[in-house]
Amino acid sequence: MSRLDAAPVEHGGDLGAARRLFPGAPEPFIDLSTGINPYPYPIPQLPPDLFTRLPERASIDALAAIAAEAYGAPSAAHVVPAPGTQILLPLVAGLVRPGRAVMLGPIYAEHRLVAACSGHRVEEVSDVARLRNADLAVVVNPNNPDGRIVPRDTLLACAQGLPAGSLLAVDEAFMDVGPPGASLAGDIERGSIVVLRSFGKFYGLAGVRLGFALAAREIAERLRASLGPWAVGGPAIAIGTAALQDRSWAEATRARLAQAAARLDRVLVGAGLDVIGGTSLFRLVRTPTATDLFHHLGRAGVLARPFSGEGTWLRFGLPASEPHWQRLEAALAGVNASARQG
Amino acid sequence: MSRLDAAPVEHGGDLGAARRLFPGAPEPFIDLSTGINPYPYPIPQLPPDLFTRLPERASIDALAAIAAEAYGAPSAAHVVPAPGTQILLPLVAGLVRPGRAVMLGPIYAEHRLVAACSGHRVEEVSDVARLRNADLAVVVNPNNPDGRIVPRDTLLACAQGLPAGSLLAVDEAFMDVGPPGASLAGDIERGSIVVLRSFGKFYGLAGVRLGFALAAREIAERLRASLGPWAVGGPAIAIGTAALQDRSWAEATRARLAQAAARLDRVLVGAGLDVIGGTSLFRLVRTPTATDLFHHLGRAGVLARPFSGEGTWLRFGLPASEPHWQRLEAALAGVNASARQG
Repeated sequence: MSRLDAAPVEHGGDLGAARRLFPGAPEPFIDLSTGINPYPYPIPQLPPDLFTRLPERASIDALAAIAAEAYGAPSAAHVVPAPGTQILLPLVAGLVRPGRAVMLGPIYAEHRLVAACSGHRVEEVSDVARLRNADLAVVVNPNNPDGRIVPRDTLLACAQGLPAGSLLAVDEAFMDVGPPGASLAGDIERGSIVVLRSFGKFYGLAGVRLGFALAAREIAERLRASLGPWAVGGPAIAIGTAALQDRSWAEATRARLAQAAARLDRVLVGAGLDVIGGTSLFRLVRTPTATDLFHHLGRAGVLARPFSGEGTWLRFGLPASEPHWQRLEAALAGVNASARQG
Repeated sequence: MSRLDAAPVEHGGDLGAARRLFPGAPEPFIDLSTGINPYPYPIPQLPPDLFTRLPERASIDALAAIAAEAYGAPSAAHVVPAPGTQILLPLVAGLVRPGRAVMLGPIYAEHRLVAACSGHRVEEVSDVARLRNADLAVVVNPNNPDGRIVPRDTLLACAQGLPAGSLLAVDEAFMDVGPPGASLAGDIERGSIVVLRSFGKFYGLAGVRLGFALAAREIAERLRASLGPWAVGGPAIAIGTAALQDRSWAEATRARLAQAAARLDRVLVGAGLDVIGGTSLFRLVRTPTATDLFHHLGRAGVLARPFSGEGTWLRFGLPASEPHWQRLEAALAGVNASARQG
């Protein structure tokens, strides 16, 4: 009965579905289907109180203050912690009256789906200038899966050119590995802007479910009221608070991810594939044989991420360990060998 | 900037606010301000994968199936896991067009607040029969804080008598300690009914943030779509799955809580207080000196739960340990001593 029924591997990260699709694949299955950092932030000690007690206001406020500093938002009052950004999408879509939701494509399917469920007419455009008449304008920056970056000035001009009562939502899920200075987090008071930041992707802790909306105080207050006082659990608050103030881990991790992404490009290009974009957390390949390649890799126990609307695309996350790199390289070599034989 | 600003201890469980209110109180502060079981379910081993990976559909479906069995809902498809029931309230209020939200009072303040924020005109009534013309009818059963129970047949008749397009929401946050057979969980297909079940209260794990909506398939599907595919994190799924199938722990805990509640009544009555209701997880006292008593106990490091709208009420949760019982008894004796002197 789940919404994933129609497309078993349409979201990344579902190894259960992958195992049903490729029942003979060697184990362990190597999951390259997400953009989640495979080198996670070390989970701190979690005292039992975090599980047993209701989260206290002071701990949530402290997390918001640390997130404001980490992301460059004006203050804790501008930050809304949530159990992941996904759950914020309908709340953001509900901040404006149902009308025209215009999205800069290609865009993550959940944005289209949620806006439509909120009563918006959804349009996808390829030019930022065409966001101008939106009631709700949505941009993912850097974009998933192609890594396109919209300059900060362009987005600001877009926000400031929107009609009164409209809103620009910028999903910065992958901005932790974006270019310095590209985030709109510091500009949220300069227009009707909501910035979404994901915690789990860059920190490699997607199971913790933590994300943030950054917005002007009045907007933040509305989102906070919708989520209620205990949206984020004690363990997530503690983990987020520790991780977001650990700047040296973040710096070292950005460098490590950039190196891994460069290595992944070498591996993919070495296998004869065109890398057309991405971020340090995932790389996007375009090949006319994407569907065949997805199945070939799957049978070899390597799960990439296909896109139902873009049949020539395949996205690869970063292998977690040396054996995973070797399994990927061997699987790609196997594809080429069978192509030569075929 | 938080919504708790106006009333520092209006929600239970905020020891930070209590310490600011009673700066000289002896430590450790004893928190009797919630209805959370002080004997928590033992947290199982949590493998790192639960934190690092996105929760998989199969694990969420398994949790829903176990919750359906534990609560008596028809099937997993009727169960919507969520990060706490609080976050479900606006989604449930949004299932019907803004209209008349009629609530059986006295009612937990969050229900009134959320319905009003969703655009409903909120009325509180004292007679179930007056829920009849509601667009959204809300009943907490057993009720917090007075423990009133509305019989299942009465609620079913109410649901079946509502106008087309209306909805009955039954918040069964404390039904784990309610009378057998009182839950509407098995009846959710017999009317337009949503039942809310809280995990953290009975299992003593409020920091985990886990709750469930039980409803007919179409309603469950709408709520599931609003929450998105990863609303509940990996650790919460694992803890909930282990706890909800542990029937012997639940049975033993129900007995233990009933004994503790009876002991709490003896302590409160022994201190000259009238206990007017409650459940095994909390007891409600009515006394003309409730405000004085709250402050007196607070200065002794014992936090009870006052009600801003009901100045003669004070709610007490269960002490967690023998030293906590002794601190409560000593604090109550101190009140009586100073009253005799005063």
